[in-house]
Amino acid sequence: MVKQVPQHGLPVRPEQLPADELHETANLLHSAALRLLRRARAVDVGMDLDGPRASLLSVLVFAGPLPVSRLAELEQVSPPAITKLVTALEAAGLAARRRDRGDRRVVLVSATAAGRRLLEQGRAARVGAVADLLAGASPAELGALRSAAELIGARLD
Amino acid sequence: MVKQVPQHGLPVRPEQLPADELHETANLLHSAALRLLRRARAVDVGMDLDGPRASLLSVLVFAGPLPVSRLAELEQVSPPAITKLVTALEAAGLAARRRDRGDRRVVLVSATAAGRRLLEQGRAARVGAVADLLAGASPAELGALRSAAELIGARLD
Repeated sequence: MVKQVPQHGLPVRPEQLPADELHETANLLHSAALRLLRRARAVDVGMDLDGPRASLLSVLVFAGPLPVSRLAELEQVSPPAITKLVTALEAAGLAARRRDRGDRRVVLVSATAAGRRLLEQGRAARVGAVADLLAGASPAELGALRSAAELIGARLD
Repeated sequence: MVKQVPQHGLPVRPEQLPADELHETANLLHSAALRLLRRARAVDVGMDLDGPRASLLSVLVFAGPLPVSRLAELEQVSPPAITKLVTALEAAGLAARRRDRGDRRVVLVSATAAGRRLLEQGRAARVGAVADLLAGASPAELGALRSAAELIGARLD
């Protein structure tokens, strides 16, 4: 099998190139974001939390408290798999389950203060890895990257 | 618990703001990439492949063939967990195991043609979601986003 890893890390054959500039830009952005996070994520190895658990903790911190069923959707795993992940985070003191006050049948999961602290440490380490990657960039380059990040943020709001 | 989800989706308290522009840019980029991929990933739900399997397939397509031990490192999961994931992809016809010709003790995992096709379909759907997000952007904005993506790509090479 021939490896196809061109400049931007994705196998692109000419006949599959996007037809217009919008899709081409979207393609470049998607690849850059994917590769950037893959690089940044490498420092998570020191965090003592595997990928799926780190991902779930991140969702709980940024979007929680959430029902278990919604977590399974967001993390794209089965109900038994999400239950196992929530139990693991709970055992580590990083997440907590409680009944929804409005609807006692619903169990909500939230991050604990320790969970937030651990995620913040991991985030700081990843941001440090991105900063290392950008070391030596000119002020103009940093400004361009910043504008692009803000533009994406504004579109997502 | 008070939700802290400001403009760029991350809980930032003033005393934790990065001291210099490099770190601030890295912080913004990291947040933008994370949020962009989270949005794009939502379309993967139609892909019939859970998050961890989709992630492993992506690694196999872009960086494979690779030994099982290296896959566990890259995906940040335990040896039993990676074996389970590889077996699931193999059963679905998306990955294949074979002995390394150079060192018969090493088992290499690679994506099959069907695996590459499925991942390419998922990628096209995610790029479509990013394109939808950018719809209506000016040519200048698209140009700025493209330059930023290329700059990041060049730094990662």
